[in-house]
Parts: sequence; C-alpha cells; structure tokens
Amino acid sequence: MDFLSVITAKKLGQELSADQIGLFARGAADGSIPDYQLASLLMAIRLNGMTPRETNDLTMAMARTGDMLSPEVGGIPVDKHSTGGVGDTTTLVLAPLVAACGGKVLKMSGRGLGHTGGTIDKLESIPGMRVSLPEEKFVGIVRDIGCAVVGQSRELAPADKRLYALRDVTSTVDSIPLIASSILSKKFASGARAIVLDVKFGSGAIMDTMDKTLALAQAMVDIGTLAGRQVIAVISSMEEPLGTHIGNALEVKEAIDILSGRAGGDLKEVSLFLGAQMLVASKVCPDEQSALARLAEALESGAGLRKLKEMIRAQGGDDRVCDDVSLLPQAPFIVPVPADRGGYLARMDTAALGNAAQAMGAGRRTKEDVIDPAVGIVMNKRLGDRVSPGEALATLHARTEESAGLAADAVKRALSFSDAPAEKPKLVYAVITRDGIRKL
Amino acid sequence: MDFLSVITAKKLGQELSADQIGLFARGAADGSIPDYQLASLLMAIRLNGMTPRETNDLTMAMARTGDMLSPEVGGIPVDKHSTGGVGDTTTLVLAPLVAACGGKVLKMSGRGLGHTGGTIDKLESIPGMRVSLPEEKFVGIVRDIGCAVVGQSRELAPADKRLYALRDVTSTVDSIPLIASSILSKKFASGARAIVLDVKFGSGAIMDTMDKTLALAQAMVDIGTLAGRQVIAVISSMEEPLGTHIGNALEVKEAIDILSGRAGGDLKEVSLFLGAQMLVASKVCPDEQSALARLAEALESGAGLRKLKEMIRAQGGDDRVCDDVSLLPQAPFIVPVPADRGGYLARMDTAALGNAAQAMGAGRRTKEDVIDPAVGIVMNKRLGDRVSPGEALATLHARTEESAGLAADAVKRALSFSDAPAEKPKLVYAVITRDGIRKL
Repeated sequence: MDFLSVITAKKLGQELSADQIGLFARGAADGSIPDYQLASLLMAIRLNGMTPRETNDLTMAMARTGDMLSPEVGGIPVDKHSTGGVGDTTTLVLAPLVAACGGKVLKMSGRGLGHTGGTIDKLESIPGMRVSLPEEKFVGIVRDIGCAVVGQSRELAPADKRLYALRDVTSTVDSIPLIASSILSKKFASGARAIVLDVKFGSGAIMDTMDKTLALAQAMVDIGTLAGRQVIAVISSMEEPLGTHIGNALEVKEAIDILSGRAGGDLKEVSLFLGAQMLVASKVCPDEQSALARLAEALESGAGLRKLKEMIRAQGGDDRVCDDVSLLPQAPFIVPVPADRGGYLARMDTAALGNAAQAMGAGRRTKEDVIDPAVGIVMNKRLGDRVSPGEALATLHARTEESAGLAADAVKRALSFSDAPAEKPKLVYAVITRDGIRKL
Repeated sequence: MDFLSVITAKKLGQELSADQIGLFARGAADGSIPDYQLASLLMAIRLNGMTPRETNDLTMAMARTGDMLSPEVGGIPVDKHSTGGVGDTTTLVLAPLVAACGGKVLKMSGRGLGHTGGTIDKLESIPGMRVSLPEEKFVGIVRDIGCAVVGQSRELAPADKRLYALRDVTSTVDSIPLIASSILSKKFASGARAIVLDVKFGSGAIMDTMDKTLALAQAMVDIGTLAGRQVIAVISSMEEPLGTHIGNALEVKEAIDILSGRAGGDLKEVSLFLGAQMLVASKVCPDEQSALARLAEALESGAGLRKLKEMIRAQGGDDRVCDDVSLLPQAPFIVPVPADRGGYLARMDTAALGNAAQAMGAGRRTKEDVIDPAVGIVMNKRLGDRVSPGEALATLHARTEESAGLAADAVKRALSFSDAPAEKPKLVYAVITRDGIRKL
C-alpha cells in the first residue's frame, strides 16, 4: 500500500480502512512519510471529515505508535482533560477532592502554550515541587494517596506530536476527528480507563459554535465507547476566565483558597461538577448526585486540602503553601486597573485576557520562553456585575511597571460594558455520555 | 500577510485576493514557503476550487515568477498544447503546415514522462536535430521559416515547476484551476499570444468525465480572455491512439508520411483541425473554413513537407529523412501481434498502450531514463475494425525479442472485442472559444 492512495481516497471522500489509517499514524511517527504528504492528508481530513470508526482507528493507531501504559493504581485510573481555558485550574481543585473520595487520579499534564496555562507550569510555582518523576514513583503516589499530577515521563503517542506541530502550521487545527484523536490517543496511551473531558465553549474556545462544540464532544464520547473506555464530556463556559485568578502561582493560590473554604465561585462549581463525573466514570460513585454529595463533604471537612498537601509532599514540594499562600512567589508590582466608565460588564474577550497574562510573563509565546510564576491578573469583576467609574476591574501582579501598564490597556480593551443589565452566562451547557446528551 | 492566513481563507472556501495568490506563487518559486504549507493549500484548492478570477491571477502570478519572453517573430506567436496523448504527434504535422500558410509557430515543448510521448524526444530521433537552442536563434528561425520546436531555453514559470512536482506526490493533480494555471503560465511566459489547447477525452486522458473535460477547457479559455490572449480549446478523442504509430522515430515517420501524402487517417484530420484553429487564433485566416482550405492546399502542394525540411535543417538535423524515412533509427526486431480471436475492435486502453511502448524503451518511467528512439508499436487496427483470428493487430518494433514478447501481451490485454459491430468514436467533440462552445 502506498501513501498516495490513502491521500487520494480521503480526497475523494472515501472512508479509510484501518490499514490505511495505521500506515498514516506509523508513517507520521517514524518519519517515513514526508511532511508535505501528511499536510495534504490533514487538509483532506479537515475538509472531508472522518467517520466515528475512522476517528477511533486513528486514535488507537496514534496511541500505539508509542508506549501503552497499564498503571496498577488500585482502582480505575481516571483522568480529566480540558480543551484549553483561561484561569482554569480545575485540576488542582478536583484532583485532591476526587482522591479524598476514593478516586484514583493519574493526571499527565502538558505545559502551557499560547493564551492557556498548563497545570505543570502552575504546580512548578510551588517551591520544590517535582513534576518529572519516574513511572513507578508516580504510579505509587496515585496508589497510595489517590492523585498525582506529572508531565509525560515517556514519549506517548509520538505520531500525535508530529501531527500536532504540523496542524498548527497548515491550518488544520480545527478538525473534529483530528482534535478528538489527538486528545484521546495520549490519554489512552497513558493508561486512563475513565476520562472526563471539559470541552470549553465561548470566547477563546477551540470551536466557535455550539454545534461544533457538541460535535467534538460527541466524537470523543463515541471513540471512548468504541475503545471500551468510559469517556464523559462536559461542555462548560469560557465566556470569561473560569476562576478569578490568571497566572501560575495566582491560580495555585485560588485553588488553595477554594480547598480551604475561603473562596467559591465558578471555578469551585465547575471543579465539583467535573469531579463528580470523574467519580461516576471511574465507578467510585453510582451517580452524579451521590458523587456531588461526597465531594461537598470532602471539601467541607478539609479532606481535599489534606490530599493536596499529601500530593505536594509526595512530589517533593513545600506543602506549607497550603497553610500560608504568601510562601508562593509574589510579584513586586500589584496595580489595580480602574474602570474608565460605569455600566454592566457585558462581554469579555477571554483569549485576550489570557494573552495579556502571557505577555506579562505568565505564559509562553514559543516553547523556549521561560515562565515567570509570580505574575498574572486577578479579575475583580465578573460578567453581569455592575461597575462604577474608577472601580477596580482587575488587579495586576507584574514584574515591572511597564508590563503592568501594557497589561492594564489590554485588560480594558478585552472588556465591554452595557448600560442595561447583562446576563451571566451559563456555567455548564451539557453533559454527554455513552447514554446520550443531557442539556443543563 | 502571513501564508497561514491564505491557507485558512481557502480552507473556509473564500476567494483569495490577488495579493494572497501572489504570495503563494512567489513563495513557491523562491522557496520561502515550505512544502507542507504549499501541500496543504494545494489540497484546499483541489477540494474548494477557485473562481475564474483567482485562476487567472494564479496563472499570471506563476508566469511572472520567471522570465516573460516577448519574441519578435514578425506576427502573432501561436502555440499549441496537448493535455497528453498517445501516438499524438500533431505538432510535427501541423507546425510546418501552419508555417506554410503564414503562421508563426513558436513551440516550446516538454519531454515525455509516463505513458505520453514528448515532441522534443520525437524530434531528437532525427539525426543531428538540436532542440536546445539560444533564444535569439530559435526566435530567428520562427521569423524566417515560420516554425521552430525547441525545449525550454530559460526557466519559465519556476513556481509551476515546484508546484507540479508537489502535486504529483500529494494527490492534487486533478484540479481544474491547478491544471489550467500550470499549462497557461508557461505558455504566457514563453510569449505565445495565441494558444490552441488540445484537451483529450477518453481512456488515459487527464479528466475522467466529459463534464470535467469541458470545465477544464472552459477554465483555460476564460483565463485567456481575462489575460487578453486568444485561447481556443478543442476537445478531441483519446479513446485510441491518435496516430497509428507509437514511439519516437515511428511517430516522426508517420508525420512525414502524412506530409508526403502517403498516409491519412485520424492524426491527419485532427492536425488539420487544430492547425485551422491556430491560423484563426493568430489572425492569419478569418475563419475555420478558409483556414482548412489553405491547410489542405499546403498539404497537397508539398509546401508543408518543405517547411518541415527547412525547420529540421535550421535546427541542425538531417532533412533527408523527409525523403527517405529509412534514415530514421530502426529497431532490430519487427514482430506482428496476431489476434487470438475474431470480432470487432470495441475498446482500447490507450494509457496501457502508451505504457507498453514506454516499457519497450520508447518512454521514461523516471526523469533519468534514457529513451530508445527506434522502438514502439504500430497499430494495424482501429476501433470499429473487423478483425479475423490470426490477423495482425499491431506490429512491434523492439530492441529485444523479450521486450517484444512482453509488449505483445500488453497490447492484447489493452484491446477488447465484441461480436456486434462497434462504433468508431468521434474525433473532435467540441471547440470552445471566448464566443462560446460549439459541439461537433
């Protein structure tokens, strides 16, 4: 079989066989297929699509181009993945809570690139914290404590690595089968048997309409069904940053504040909702209601915060940050952003806020950039809030006065006001399981 | 402007601006755009198409990536291009005839690759013939004699060279805007003001349906109109080899036989028809009827044969081949292919016959292959002919007995018989000019 015939078949809108898809994935991983042929097929897939069967075959074929882990964690390994949010540190809230309820959270996470942060980068703002651990070590932590959050220890799904880089430069990112197979191939390779997907919808989300967002979520649930893994997709709002804090140490602080009972809000609500799906997907709880109740109890009793401490300690970090958040890196300039006008906060450009934090040093523009853990933005107002002129919209945590000035302008540009009261967006739009879709 | 936004626009089905198309053509020519991005855009163009305006802009932009010739030939330079046929040596018949009628035929031709022969290769079977001449030399020949057939002296439309090679390996050959711009960019760059396109239809043709063939022809005529050049497209049959001879010296022999009045048939008819379009397109004759009459006279009087001699002499060749075709290279083995069964010859796989001649040595599989000028196939029967068992279907001119044996099998496989009388296909289906389409 030659690869040109695979391109031709997809160009003509035909369904590719498992053998054809296997050739594609292996050729992407071992370098035997040149970039230009991969690029041509990627565009043909973007324009002509893939059936659920093809997408599942692609996911499994990509997973098998590298190691396939089968971690013994004393339960069903459960993972959570977000399609990319701003101020979105649900992992640090829900992983300890789910572990406190008996779940086994094995989370291999990525670093941030572009306007969204990476959980690994956030954790590294905790003094001493190690995110690169040998496999037996982090599997042992999950078995003993119930949760570990680490970077990829081995090369999982190397085909995805090459295709992901190529999609970025060939305008083939926005393809449902390619997104779905990219996300799930790595999750399947890491050994997750239950996976909760947080599919974002709103400004700065990967898909620009609700129809496409639903289609992406459905595609991933379908792959899970075909692959014999429990996949639950939640569609949640990204019309504004999920938490109030954007930036690495700032987001760790907000997670600790929530687990300590000092803070609430949307980040807490969504973390509990996603955590409940994880407990259901990994069969720790029989249904969402009982899962939510157990999570609330773990939060109330402080069991969640204790789990976070245990995890930080097990991964070499200074767990005293959980009792004293001032031990986290602090930025020298803390500057409010006053409102130029009054009104109701009607719209936020979430991606622009993420980009503003990135420009301050909280994120990377290229893979080589070094992150400043202390800097970022704390939003003082949320969508629907009434704002008076001069009131602080946000508080900047900056390395220099100059970067604070630039960020203040960017924050103001990212916010729109109305004179009439503006509605708060929904937090969660829908949950999709193998049994169907439930709109909320 | 960055190239990724150009790919995105075409992916979304938008019409590209002249600036975007210019970036594409220049980036292809100067190497500043990597292959994988070109490949991605080529597939997006293949699947989402281009408007006539875009296709014209692409043609002009590709032409301008190299030299733009403006040869002074003492009249309107006219060229003819075939989309690729087997046994299709119309150029060697019509160029001298059109020149004898006062036309100025400046033909820059390619070498053959795959199952179709190249005019340059055919001419090189004439002892001493030079197809690589300095520009002022061949322009002078056209001015003095009226016709010259040479290879490309300078790099014309280098963007096309890169894109053509890339299309071949990315399954993006069969795109009407890409074919049309590829053909015409080189013709425009070579300075042709009037162009007659012979668009083949049938087994082994570039397009597989009449609708697509008509659309390709129309696209090229439209580009000519937009570019202010006279383009006439003729759709002719490739259901069987056009001439009876397939192979380099064999095709030169057939052209000489026709110009000498010893042979007739489809090749002669199509050559006269295409030649008439050339005389009309370059305004030598006011209409097709008068052009056909002048061509018939030039053939009858021997003026065409004399022009061929002049051209061969001017290009350094031995013009005695026109009086004695035995001076052309001769193959050592001349072997008939007898029919296994009787019946009416109902179908020929033209591409298979071309490939059989190529395998004998008449063509190239890769650019590095060396051609054997003497070998090839002479078809003794044409579609619709009644054949008796044992009668010769074809005569092979082979270098070895072994290659003759292989070719005999291939020829037999390429022919299908029926017991009921089979119809002869039409020779010319349609003529498309800026004034509309005329079906024949």
